[in-house]
Amino acid sequence: MFNSNHKMSSALRWLPSVCLGIALSSGAVAQETSASKQPWMQGFPPDNEHIIRNTDSDFFTGEKLRWTVCNLGTLFPNKILHRGLNPAHHFEYNLDPSIAEISFTPLNSQQPMSWDEAFSANYTDGLIVLHQGKIVYERYAGCLNELGIHASMSVTKSLIGLLAETLIAEGLLDETALAAQIVPELTNSAFGNATVRHILNMTTSLKYSEDYSDPNADVWQYGAATSPLPMPADYQGPRSYFEYLQSVKKEGEHGQAFAYKTINTDALGWIISRSTGQSISDLLSERLWQPMGAEQSAIFTVDSIGTPFAGGGLSAGLRDLARIGQLMLNEGQFNGKQLIPAQAVRSISVGGDPQLFAKAGYSTLPNGSYKSMWWSYHNANGAYAARGIHGQTIYIDPSAKMVIVRFASHPQAANTHNDPTSLPAYQAVADYLSQ
Amino acid sequence: MFNSNHKMSSALRWLPSVCLGIALSSGAVAQETSASKQPWMQGFPPDNEHIIRNTDSDFFTGEKLRWTVCNLGTLFPNKILHRGLNPAHHFEYNLDPSIAEISFTPLNSQQPMSWDEAFSANYTDGLIVLHQGKIVYERYAGCLNELGIHASMSVTKSLIGLLAETLIAEGLLDETALAAQIVPELTNSAFGNATVRHILNMTTSLKYSEDYSDPNADVWQYGAATSPLPMPADYQGPRSYFEYLQSVKKEGEHGQAFAYKTINTDALGWIISRSTGQSISDLLSERLWQPMGAEQSAIFTVDSIGTPFAGGGLSAGLRDLARIGQLMLNEGQFNGKQLIPAQAVRSISVGGDPQLFAKAGYSTLPNGSYKSMWWSYHNANGAYAARGIHGQTIYIDPSAKMVIVRFASHPQAANTHNDPTSLPAYQAVADYLSQ
Repeated sequence: MFNSNHKMSSALRWLPSVCLGIALSSGAVAQETSASKQPWMQGFPPDNEHIIRNTDSDFFTGEKLRWTVCNLGTLFPNKILHRGLNPAHHFEYNLDPSIAEISFTPLNSQQPMSWDEAFSANYTDGLIVLHQGKIVYERYAGCLNELGIHASMSVTKSLIGLLAETLIAEGLLDETALAAQIVPELTNSAFGNATVRHILNMTTSLKYSEDYSDPNADVWQYGAATSPLPMPADYQGPRSYFEYLQSVKKEGEHGQAFAYKTINTDALGWIISRSTGQSISDLLSERLWQPMGAEQSAIFTVDSIGTPFAGGGLSAGLRDLARIGQLMLNEGQFNGKQLIPAQAVRSISVGGDPQLFAKAGYSTLPNGSYKSMWWSYHNANGAYAARGIHGQTIYIDPSAKMVIVRFASHPQAANTHNDPTSLPAYQAVADYLSQ
Repeated sequence: MFNSNHKMSSALRWLPSVCLGIALSSGAVAQETSASKQPWMQGFPPDNEHIIRNTDSDFFTGEKLRWTVCNLGTLFPNKILHRGLNPAHHFEYNLDPSIAEISFTPLNSQQPMSWDEAFSANYTDGLIVLHQGKIVYERYAGCLNELGIHASMSVTKSLIGLLAETLIAEGLLDETALAAQIVPELTNSAFGNATVRHILNMTTSLKYSEDYSDPNADVWQYGAATSPLPMPADYQGPRSYFEYLQSVKKEGEHGQAFAYKTINTDALGWIISRSTGQSISDLLSERLWQPMGAEQSAIFTVDSIGTPFAGGGLSAGLRDLARIGQLMLNEGQFNGKQLIPAQAVRSISVGGDPQLFAKAGYSTLPNGSYKSMWWSYHNANGAYAARGIHGQTIYIDPSAKMVIVRFASHPQAANTHNDPTSLPAYQAVADYLSQ
């Protein structure tokens, strides 16, 4: 007989790994693990204590995380985001060894730290810095190398936001349209009378909790509904992103405040796919990966009907996300071609409304805002970023003509845990490169 | 509560899809479906009657097969076989429109058929013909295009056999060694006192049935043991390829007859990985996909501990398997480089022992043999092939300097159903190209 509680929780565990931007207070204490020391899933077979399965309750926590971030596709069904058959674009290199020694003072600290020390402190798996379009720093660790792909978590959202802004700029999507006008199935849900812009900026009012400390939070039902693994035979709930989204209820009025809820991005993904007739992974392939000469195909985790997870399903190569960052810095141009309308990038880089954002209380982003699924720092350099839990980021600094992409497997999910040793470091490198 | 019977059978259903070369007598009658007509998994969401899930009992039969063969990774966890970062090799084209009209007489028939008619009759998804290293014919249908990958089924075995022959030629693997000497865990299994050569040629004597008409056949336990999906909580059996292989018992003496049993290839994969310290997918990447300039990364389905399925787990691009075929035709050379020792290829192309093979009674291969996981036809042209159920093949004709790769989704698994409209067609094109 099945133990249905065990089984259910196994399916539910899938979600925390991929959605969201809220802290999971993991009890595990992760040690830094270098590529050579990484003990997980080595050997034929791996020794029993270092096997990671999709049924493990802790596959996305602590030390296991350091393997899983590079291998989500080996644990779960996924969909290929094709790089296509074009020759790969290659960045020029202008490596600057001094960057490793750049010193900065972490937030809430008096103790200086070097860039290299921060690399370790943040459980970094891959880190690249572009300046004026050339690679000035690049380093891999943990489970990652230049041939590998890494979970980007909610960085995925920013790419979906970029797709939406592109369609808006091209006149293929109306930001004032109500979701129900584009996806009638959403009519009776909270999304029904939200505009595309409300969803894009996450200023919808949704009766939906992403509080992982609450066992009754909606996020757990979302995890069950969107799991690609078999569910208990008596499970009667929604069985896909699309089915779940239809069940979300409203709580208040849209447009009043920013509230970070992953389901907005999945609703946006639905709107985009219904508008274009293409999956978000195929659209990203056609609009970005293929024309920009990506080096590697990427993958998207999927639900049980093959829908790519818009809210956080992308695993990609480090340099391929650097190409995205450089395209953003160049207002949609890459390698001499205008791949994305400049207007789409400008709508993002200008940032959102800090007053709507302030209500959400992000301690490490006191002046921040969120627009079109991107985070703006509203600092002197006009920096903005894609951000995903456990330390994933594409950080764009227009003033310094700098792009940073980082993949990490920090044991604490919330970026409030790595921002103190990241954001001042990024600023210090920006200052150095701007000299 | 779970319905454990339902769940169990769901896990078990996974296997028939991927192992083996024995007929499944599917009751479904598949209609030919062109790429444009293919109704499965289209739309956001697909309509209910055209959704395919990994829990469907029939995901690898009939019409559903026509979608699934291109999308195994969207249903099941899998491991990337990286193409690497090298520029892709490109074939020259010398397309010959006359090939489509070439006529042949199917086996056991008086009625002539054209190459193009055979394309449809065989439920072909992709078909390419190389002559003297140039593409003379190439066509896609069904779910496949040049950007896609397709299940190769037991063609996988031939690539594992090629790896083994390569290691033997390089002195890294001793074909006379007993499996137990290389993998001590196999000591008490049937494989323990089999030589590498017995396993490589499938002349082991194993108490193991791949008879799908028998609900108690061992193949069903193998399917359960090697499923990457969660198992019932009370399941106590083996949970990986490696665990299952240790449980296989002997029946008779090794070396007496050819008996096609997929588990030989998984044992060979284990021997290769233990010998080299690399997974078969990483080894194929390093030895073939990267140096030959593959256009696409491929994938391998995996078990619950991430072991690639050596017996049938590879999905790859059509032209990439054509590169393998051309490398075989050129005795290990490709694009001017000796990637594989000529001796490894010659050991395969010379064929096996037809007398050992005859006992297996393959009606469409009256003069055939099997060696190193490749099938030899022993015809006048010295043709040999990799073959996988539902019509997958890499067909190499040394005399005609011809390579054919075909992907298909024939509703009947056993190639005895498509050989009559395939093998005489290959010979007719070989004759035409040899004029």
